[in-house]
Amino acid sequence: MTFVERVTREGSPDFVPVPERIAVFDNDGTLWAEQPMYFQGFFVIDRVKALGPQHPEWQTKEPFASVRKGDIKGVAAAGEKGAMEMLAATHTGMTTEEFTRTVSDWIATARHPGTGKLYTDMVYQPMLELLAYLRANGFKTFIVSGGGSEFMRPWTERVYGIPPEQVVGSSVRMKLEMRDGRPVLVKLPEIDLNDDKDGKPVGIQSRIGRRPVMAFGNSDGDLQMLQWTTAGDGPRFAMYVHHTDAAREWAYDRDSHVGRLDKGLDEAAAKDWTVVSMGEDWKTIYRN
Amino acid sequence: MTFVERVTREGSPDFVPVPERIAVFDNDGTLWAEQPMYFQGFFVIDRVKALGPQHPEWQTKEPFASVRKGDIKGVAAAGEKGAMEMLAATHTGMTTEEFTRTVSDWIATARHPGTGKLYTDMVYQPMLELLAYLRANGFKTFIVSGGGSEFMRPWTERVYGIPPEQVVGSSVRMKLEMRDGRPVLVKLPEIDLNDDKDGKPVGIQSRIGRRPVMAFGNSDGDLQMLQWTTAGDGPRFAMYVHHTDAAREWAYDRDSHVGRLDKGLDEAAAKDWTVVSMGEDWKTIYRN
Repeated sequence: MTFVERVTREGSPDFVPVPERIAVFDNDGTLWAEQPMYFQGFFVIDRVKALGPQHPEWQTKEPFASVRKGDIKGVAAAGEKGAMEMLAATHTGMTTEEFTRTVSDWIATARHPGTGKLYTDMVYQPMLELLAYLRANGFKTFIVSGGGSEFMRPWTERVYGIPPEQVVGSSVRMKLEMRDGRPVLVKLPEIDLNDDKDGKPVGIQSRIGRRPVMAFGNSDGDLQMLQWTTAGDGPRFAMYVHHTDAAREWAYDRDSHVGRLDKGLDEAAAKDWTVVSMGEDWKTIYRN
Repeated sequence: MTFVERVTREGSPDFVPVPERIAVFDNDGTLWAEQPMYFQGFFVIDRVKALGPQHPEWQTKEPFASVRKGDIKGVAAAGEKGAMEMLAATHTGMTTEEFTRTVSDWIATARHPGTGKLYTDMVYQPMLELLAYLRANGFKTFIVSGGGSEFMRPWTERVYGIPPEQVVGSSVRMKLEMRDGRPVLVKLPEIDLNDDKDGKPVGIQSRIGRRPVMAFGNSDGDLQMLQWTTAGDGPRFAMYVHHTDAAREWAYDRDSHVGRLDKGLDEAAAKDWTVVSMGEDWKTIYRN
């Protein structure tokens, strides 16, 4: 009997009542691809280019100057500090409504430089089927991602069937302001939740308030979420998606800079968690 | 035609699709009573008394000493700073699981000093019926309260039919720790979200990520939530519960220290929001 059959069969010793059927999914590398960098990174680059004319100082200021020249090495040289400056410049200062509109416009048209596909066509077909299967069995499906909650919410309902209120992501603080007698929320350059690693159980507890029964990830950044999920009483399920298909997608794990899966692979083996090999187990990769 | 009929009738110009039917409710004074002080305040007092033996220093330290002696004036004299110290002493330092157990035990047995009722028997019957009515019409009901999310979640599902993941409240930061190889979350004495006034739209946006269609409150602390809700496009509904029944509950508004309703009453009149008078409009007050 599968795990889902066990927890949904009335009278089963492992039965889990419907309200407690919470399943959490990482996004980058678990529900959609994440190479050669997180797709939100492409959004940042496109925004820096689009906003350039309003920022003449970026012509000389790094890493903005390198972004505009397409000089990846120059961008990388600016390191974490440079990345945070670009995030602040592209994700804060505007209202939540303005940011949502910008994301919606971008996600509808931007294409991945390698595959030429819309980013939302690089979501994994088997994971879409898994989401639908779990929901058909009374599970509420949540995203718990290091990506920005405001970056994901404009399209997760359409693409994954996951509504905004079931999207937990990294976020910045916000400030309520009255503009022309109308309240707006302005995004501030100050981290509210860093929803990665230790931040994932924190995000789950603060936003969902109930320990998940099932958790799905693909990297060491998801390890704490899988540990937190499986540390609960009763039946719990943890799964890693393992990127093993260089021909149809990408192959990477222990040495990757994006989506590194190292400690997680060891712990999955030790704890007998499910590890899905994209190359061997998935007939289709991207959504049909 | 009522508001709910208008937004749920297919073909109506005001039709709102099911996924967008979000209704938010304040808790204290809107779903249950809040006099002579927020019920979470009684929890704090009971915890200070229960924890006293482990804190001999509290025999002389204010406001703890006054709490233990039942000296309300002494407690009040310690002001906001004293209140924050008691909150930190009773709401932080423990794991989320320990805190949940403590709240569950307390709410099952503690009784209101005035009515002698369990606190969960001081929830309002008409609001329970309203919650059920909205859910029957495809609305997802959320609590958005200045009270603690971890204080409400252990009992809101049983009492209101509102699951933990639909409870937005004030919260403290948390830290993930491994204890005997098992992850726990420890509550820290540092505010994460102050879910009152300006904090309510912030809480709605960060936790729900979608503007509500209907909002229900009872005090000036809910005004920004009602403004935020009604500032959206399309049909929106805002309602204040007005405490006007000194015989069956309490009567208070513009001058009250708890649940003051002053600016909100003016704005409700100016904007034609619904104001329900508990004394005139409610046949029953407390749950049956």
